[in-house]
Amino acid sequence: MREGSRSASGYNGPVVTFEDIRQAHARIRDRIRRTPVEHSRSFDERAGLHCYFKCENLQRGGAFKIRGATNFILQLDAGQLRRGVVAYSSGNHAQAVALAAREAGTQATLVMPADAPRSKLEATRARGARIVTYDRQRESREAIGEAIARETGATLVPPFDHPWIIAGQGTAAVELLEDVPELDALIAPLGGGGLLSGCAIAAKALRPQIRVFGAEPERASDWYLSLAQGRRVRISPPDTIADGLRAPQPGELTFSLLREHLEAVLLVSEEEILETMSFLLMRLKLLVEPSGAVAAAAALFRKLPPELRSVGVILSGGNVDFDVIRMLPDTDRRQDGKMD
Amino acid sequence: MREGSRSASGYNGPVVTFEDIRQAHARIRDRIRRTPVEHSRSFDERAGLHCYFKCENLQRGGAFKIRGATNFILQLDAGQLRRGVVAYSSGNHAQAVALAAREAGTQATLVMPADAPRSKLEATRARGARIVTYDRQRESREAIGEAIARETGATLVPPFDHPWIIAGQGTAAVELLEDVPELDALIAPLGGGGLLSGCAIAAKALRPQIRVFGAEPERASDWYLSLAQGRRVRISPPDTIADGLRAPQPGELTFSLLREHLEAVLLVSEEEILETMSFLLMRLKLLVEPSGAVAAAAALFRKLPPELRSVGVILSGGNVDFDVIRMLPDTDRRQDGKMD
Repeated sequence: MREGSRSASGYNGPVVTFEDIRQAHARIRDRIRRTPVEHSRSFDERAGLHCYFKCENLQRGGAFKIRGATNFILQLDAGQLRRGVVAYSSGNHAQAVALAAREAGTQATLVMPADAPRSKLEATRARGARIVTYDRQRESREAIGEAIARETGATLVPPFDHPWIIAGQGTAAVELLEDVPELDALIAPLGGGGLLSGCAIAAKALRPQIRVFGAEPERASDWYLSLAQGRRVRISPPDTIADGLRAPQPGELTFSLLREHLEAVLLVSEEEILETMSFLLMRLKLLVEPSGAVAAAAALFRKLPPELRSVGVILSGGNVDFDVIRMLPDTDRRQDGKMD
Repeated sequence: MREGSRSASGYNGPVVTFEDIRQAHARIRDRIRRTPVEHSRSFDERAGLHCYFKCENLQRGGAFKIRGATNFILQLDAGQLRRGVVAYSSGNHAQAVALAAREAGTQATLVMPADAPRSKLEATRARGARIVTYDRQRESREAIGEAIARETGATLVPPFDHPWIIAGQGTAAVELLEDVPELDALIAPLGGGGLLSGCAIAAKALRPQIRVFGAEPERASDWYLSLAQGRRVRISPPDTIADGLRAPQPGELTFSLLREHLEAVLLVSEEEILETMSFLLMRLKLLVEPSGAVAAAAALFRKLPPELRSVGVILSGGNVDFDVIRMLPDTDRRQDGKMD
């Protein structure tokens, strides 16, 4: 099933099973929040189906990433913990690693893009991590992260393409299906694919007939292209407001898992993402980051098959800069025609 | 205990007991949402105590008001329901009455200030209610509401000063204390006083040692002045961003109830309200309206007695206009000194 000769994280081990996800859940459940599942009649009316939102924007660290990072770091041995951990991330993974590292008593070094949302840089620093910034257009975060790992003996905590990370992220779907067992479908945003890989495995194990969809910005359509071509397509660094979905290529492991489970990848425009954020904010009173709203946007703008009755939608994170909030369209005003 | 010769709602009946609140809860619980209780380490750190937020911003209609309105309308007889209901409100009560009326199959007429947040006007209209606007500076909403009731035979649903309304609002505290039984204190915003009256009665019944506080804007300090003077003080129409707390005078019944239960009224500035909204939005990912953030502002800015360990804070609503969101301070930026 593998498309490349090696994965970015250097991982070449076994695939991920539902048992791995159940063990991950037992391992991390006291260190994460069991996030609520929200529901909105007005959203359903516009989407034309019942949507159940798994609110990982209310998760510790503001995103689902704490699940995988905690599951990973809790499996390191004492010597590894002494030498610390290193991670590269557009933000939420960095915060999660910083948080999980601090709780495990180990030092984290984070490689973050210089243009990451400032709120994410600050939040990571506030959690006691060392930050190394890089230029997203010219430098390779993987190379910088691996160099730091080599020089310091720190363990690299990969952002998505590792079975421990994937198993951790899959715990979100375990909780969602415990709360809402009879879902027709599940949809989550696709960045590196760690979240949806884990969630797809969990969902299919718990409810074999469930249909699994991914969502990504039109401007970051590497998964859409990769699925269509049957190989991992690399695109140039994506320019999308969904900063958490800017990985230019599916992971090796995540791609091999998701080609098996994924029915389709749905694309949304930048405008649809912002309008969905605005709807979630004004109607559900929830702040969701652009990446976190991508799956909801696919539902709101009716890109899912029309025969679906109920879908679990993962709101993957809520870490937003104020600049983005100020840019949101005033959807209420638009709807009644009072906006220009 | 009565200070005036008649109350605005014409009510002159018995006081409200905990039994009334329990019956209200049984009556309305299937028609309202049991809102979650949220908690935030970063908020607690700044506030210097444990805060448990009862999220009535996530309530149906976006505020606690549906509790009282539903409890009221469900007690009308068939003849009353045929003639409809009328209410005057700065917004959230209007939405609640519109919603509860529609569900009870009766027509609602709402008297709303012309300068109420547009989102509230629109949401009320969308629920099938007739809207009559008035000038907050020059006209009396009570007079308009009572005239409509006289002319049409509709029943006036008072915004706060009625035992059915107060009993309904008190159900929020019943749920909060079921979820977090060991609170030292309870704090809620004070507008007309319906929410806090009901909540104080419920909280004192369930936990006699609980201390009860109210919060209001410095610019709308009618409760503060009234408690200090031992009589219901009327102030000129308050100019505060907390549009839900602009009632110029405590209610007759609410004042008689709260002088018994209320330890102190804490005042917050307009800036403190906005900064608290910003904190709740950016850290807890929750959209709370200005009125809804007033009690949280009193906690965040350490106006509560320092010996308190844990406090239940009612976030009373989440209906905000976009203009207000755009006005919020970027607290993260301010904290690290990068703002002008």
